[in-house]
Amino acid sequence: MDVDAAVFDVFGTLTDWRSSVSRELAGVGGRAGLRADWPAVTDSWRRGYHPALGRILSGEMPWIPLDDLHRLVLDEVLTAHRLDRLGEAERDELVRAWHRLRPWPDAPVGLEMLHRTRVVTASLSNGGVGLLARLTKQAGLRFDCILSAELARSYKPDPRIYRTAAELLAVEPRRLLMVACHPDDLEAAARAGLRTAYVPRPLEWGPDADPVGPPDGVDLVADDIVALAHALGASGADRPLTSGSRVSQVH
Amino acid sequence: MDVDAAVFDVFGTLTDWRSSVSRELAGVGGRAGLRADWPAVTDSWRRGYHPALGRILSGEMPWIPLDDLHRLVLDEVLTAHRLDRLGEAERDELVRAWHRLRPWPDAPVGLEMLHRTRVVTASLSNGGVGLLARLTKQAGLRFDCILSAELARSYKPDPRIYRTAAELLAVEPRRLLMVACHPDDLEAAARAGLRTAYVPRPLEWGPDADPVGPPDGVDLVADDIVALAHALGASGADRPLTSGSRVSQVH
Repeated sequence: MDVDAAVFDVFGTLTDWRSSVSRELAGVGGRAGLRADWPAVTDSWRRGYHPALGRILSGEMPWIPLDDLHRLVLDEVLTAHRLDRLGEAERDELVRAWHRLRPWPDAPVGLEMLHRTRVVTASLSNGGVGLLARLTKQAGLRFDCILSAELARSYKPDPRIYRTAAELLAVEPRRLLMVACHPDDLEAAARAGLRTAYVPRPLEWGPDADPVGPPDGVDLVADDIVALAHALGASGADRPLTSGSRVSQVH
Repeated sequence: MDVDAAVFDVFGTLTDWRSSVSRELAGVGGRAGLRADWPAVTDSWRRGYHPALGRILSGEMPWIPLDDLHRLVLDEVLTAHRLDRLGEAERDELVRAWHRLRPWPDAPVGLEMLHRTRVVTASLSNGGVGLLARLTKQAGLRFDCILSAELARSYKPDPRIYRTAAELLAVEPRRLLMVACHPDDLEAAARAGLRTAYVPRPLEWGPDADPVGPPDGVDLVADDIVALAHALGASGADRPLTSGSRVSQVH
């Protein structure tokens, strides 16, 4: 596939938010003497995030940074799970858990391979610029550029996010590839004129979650970021991380 | 020095625009059968850029991207140097010479060292986001984040540029260090509340240029980016690039 730049979703597509945030919740909760089904609390937190986003996208609520949005939903979730005892400092620490997510194992290798090609890579996440700079530095996710929905003061899947990314990178939308494991993100990118690549993350919501598939009309399906890097012209891998990693050019 | 992030000027501080652009001018001009003092043409181009910036900062001219600004000044400079024969495609190619600047030899090593510290690094240049992503990728200048004056739709030394950088990185201005070889850039950053580091580039305007010194009130003076990295807590260098590279903590 011939593109000039590729932008990547981060929460889910490149990082395992569920196990990362669960672990931090278990740590903070445990130190406070609390017991809970921490992966279930994490899932509630992530599920609550989508309607909160929706209120901003509909104009019902003004734009606020993702950290503030995470805090708003966390407060509701802790009440719902009878974990109100957690104090201010602990809640702030938990919000920052989203700055420290661990990558899926193929993501650092695949992004490093892509860095060595002529394709310019960037994040395109609902996380803020500062959050993304810290997260990618710590997780070893190498990008040529950090882009965030914050730069258009909105959130994905607002079409302005994808158009702003193309404008800032100074590339035609059809020469820009959006990479994500979420069909709604890819569908919105395609409507904005971008090309799209679907990378499945069957463990995003844990081992018992319902399977997700690529959206209709996706341009490329790649097993992981290493397979994607090969599809975009990268050669070699630092180490044989994925066995039988495959890619299918759909369009 | 204890800071959370460091932002860097790019044209002059990290890259040798004069020899890079001269070489491309000589190449394009030579192919067109033209002869000229190409370093002098390059100096005229760079000198013409400052009054053009001034017209935008004063509100006399609306904001335009740096590529367009470079083109505007190039057209004037080619006329002044009787090089009008260069056509559209050649002028476009010359504007893109600023996307392909070569780094000073200490810059890639020093930025790689800083990447391994807890200090978040970013560009803060009048170049656009796309230009900077391509330039830094090609020059091997590793940043954790790309920031540009374009994100505030203005140009340095407008104070909004420095404040926007602190806001996007989500750090206090006094925890943010501006690194540059240009006193006016550092003075403006200091007025916006940032801390400042001066790195001399005595060859920026060629071997015969007048010497430049650090501005009054600068917080740190470092011989080069490797010395700066050491001052910010980095350990080791990939290879012994600079001998006797020094740093002085002024405040």
